[in-house]
Amino acid sequence: MKVSELGEFGLIDLLAKTVSRTKPNRHPRQPELIVGIGDDTAAWKEDSSIRLATVDSLVQDVHFSLETISWSELGWKSLAVNLSDIAAIGGAPGYALVSLSLPGDTQVEDVVAFYEGMNDIAQRFGVCIVGGDTCRAPIVSITITLLGNSRSQNLLRRSGAVPGDMIAVTGYPGSAAAGFEMMTYQLQFNEEATTCLRNAFHRPWPRITEGQRLVEYGAAAAIDISDGLIADLEHICQASHVSARLEVDSLPIHPVVKENFGEKATRLALTGGEDYELLFTADVNIMNKVKREIQCPVTVIGRITDEEPYEVGLFDNSGNPVKIDRSGWDHFKASK
Amino acid sequence: MKVSELGEFGLIDLLAKTVSRTKPNRHPRQPELIVGIGDDTAAWKEDSSIRLATVDSLVQDVHFSLETISWSELGWKSLAVNLSDIAAIGGAPGYALVSLSLPGDTQVEDVVAFYEGMNDIAQRFGVCIVGGDTCRAPIVSITITLLGNSRSQNLLRRSGAVPGDMIAVTGYPGSAAAGFEMMTYQLQFNEEATTCLRNAFHRPWPRITEGQRLVEYGAAAAIDISDGLIADLEHICQASHVSARLEVDSLPIHPVVKENFGEKATRLALTGGEDYELLFTADVNIMNKVKREIQCPVTVIGRITDEEPYEVGLFDNSGNPVKIDRSGWDHFKASK
Repeated sequence: MKVSELGEFGLIDLLAKTVSRTKPNRHPRQPELIVGIGDDTAAWKEDSSIRLATVDSLVQDVHFSLETISWSELGWKSLAVNLSDIAAIGGAPGYALVSLSLPGDTQVEDVVAFYEGMNDIAQRFGVCIVGGDTCRAPIVSITITLLGNSRSQNLLRRSGAVPGDMIAVTGYPGSAAAGFEMMTYQLQFNEEATTCLRNAFHRPWPRITEGQRLVEYGAAAAIDISDGLIADLEHICQASHVSARLEVDSLPIHPVVKENFGEKATRLALTGGEDYELLFTADVNIMNKVKREIQCPVTVIGRITDEEPYEVGLFDNSGNPVKIDRSGWDHFKASK
Repeated sequence: MKVSELGEFGLIDLLAKTVSRTKPNRHPRQPELIVGIGDDTAAWKEDSSIRLATVDSLVQDVHFSLETISWSELGWKSLAVNLSDIAAIGGAPGYALVSLSLPGDTQVEDVVAFYEGMNDIAQRFGVCIVGGDTCRAPIVSITITLLGNSRSQNLLRRSGAVPGDMIAVTGYPGSAAAGFEMMTYQLQFNEEATTCLRNAFHRPWPRITEGQRLVEYGAAAAIDISDGLIADLEHICQASHVSARLEVDSLPIHPVVKENFGEKATRLALTGGEDYELLFTADVNIMNKVKREIQCPVTVIGRITDEEPYEVGLFDNSGNPVKIDRSGWDHFKASK
């Protein structure tokens, strides 16, 4: 069977099983694993702290096009997607290692611009770039490993959602996908809209502070939106053995997206991906505190239920089911 | 300027300077950096321990050919090259994160074989694979990040060599390059030689235990041989501000390589690369202890001097200079 037939999530499951057959020789310094393969961020206990580590790759013409993204934006985004994984577990980032594969005819100034963009976001989030690897390759490919800590003994997990929890999202999902469509299809909008949508796709702002507050206040489950809101909510449902009821009319859609994409905006918000906003669940009291205390927009968009099978149902504000093309982002199946 | 004109080491220097302009917001948990960009392994103090992290990428048709390496061997080698970086600093490996980019038509059984090969070496060295990332790409590319600890407060560094130190190497450098030539040019040897050379190139054995003993006994400087013996010895000379005098006739060359490659064996040993043996320096007393106590072959091959410029001189056993094609491995310039 080809990996494109199995799909990304099938492959991850299979590899997790292969690896779980590994029984490392434990020695006194071998710490205790809390989160392993299959989650966004690995976590383990060591010297009474919780250590975090996450890795993400961006591959030319799969994750980005050098025809639309600048090298500086690419540097920003490469680290941002990793920061978002640390945000989704409620952690604090620390050190980064950068592996950069480049064609030999890449301009040195472009590589410096890449590092400057990465430095920019690194400085804003207190990340120190400590090492890496550069090598020749036919296409540009970036793999960043980000290490961090949890200041709390608790972590945000995909698996913590409980029936009755409210479901909420930070920011405006769909904006990144709108930016992608604008650049791919060379749609012409006014300058403000163009900048807003370009930044949404190329300079996402990881919700590090918000993730830490969610842990502190006791949110039940969280994930960052990389695959698309529905697809990522399904990850929560599957990990938590619950279902979700999503109120499509409650979706927070950015005015720029609403204005320029009309009816399509809802589909972008539900399936777009690459928003790097936090999707989370919490009981009513905690959700009220979150909405009061967290500075970025937080919108309640549905509720966790105990219905089987573990999936996401879409409803309008009259309670009628809504149908939508729900194809999510699968790195092996997608043709996006 | 193109990166191929600047070269790998020029690029690393430039990127280190770009990154050193980063001043992360230090907070109470921000630990203390000991080794940053430019060395094989980053190191920092945290909770009174020394943490280590290294990353290495293997790119299809740059670092390996699927026409000669099996998927299981590729899994082994991908982790081995990272283990070797931890060995070179004298550390103990712990956790690994694996980022795997694959064409969609890759067979699932091949990916499983890759993970099994990686598991095999992981188990032998007490490594736990805790996470990663899989994505679609036009070619196979593997980036592994390996985290570790130092049990000692000391580390093996490139920069510790002192005039008068003896220079030694573990194992038999040149064997991996001999394996590469055998497979690339389809040279026909007997079965024992074929297996020996194939394993030297595809299943290198990282010198983790030996690296830890070298720290314990007080070796002055070390590096693992990835770029080639001369090139890596030059890295030590440049970092330590010393020169080196290499006795070519002392080079330990594996009998299989000597028998099948004749006069070419010396050049393979000096410039071949990818041996993942340890090249290190120590004073006479420590070197004697190392030779007595370490179980793998250890051969003294020269001496550190205070001559300028900081480079490696080659001599025969009569003290006459030896000339050799000294081109090392540069990931951006090489056409290997």
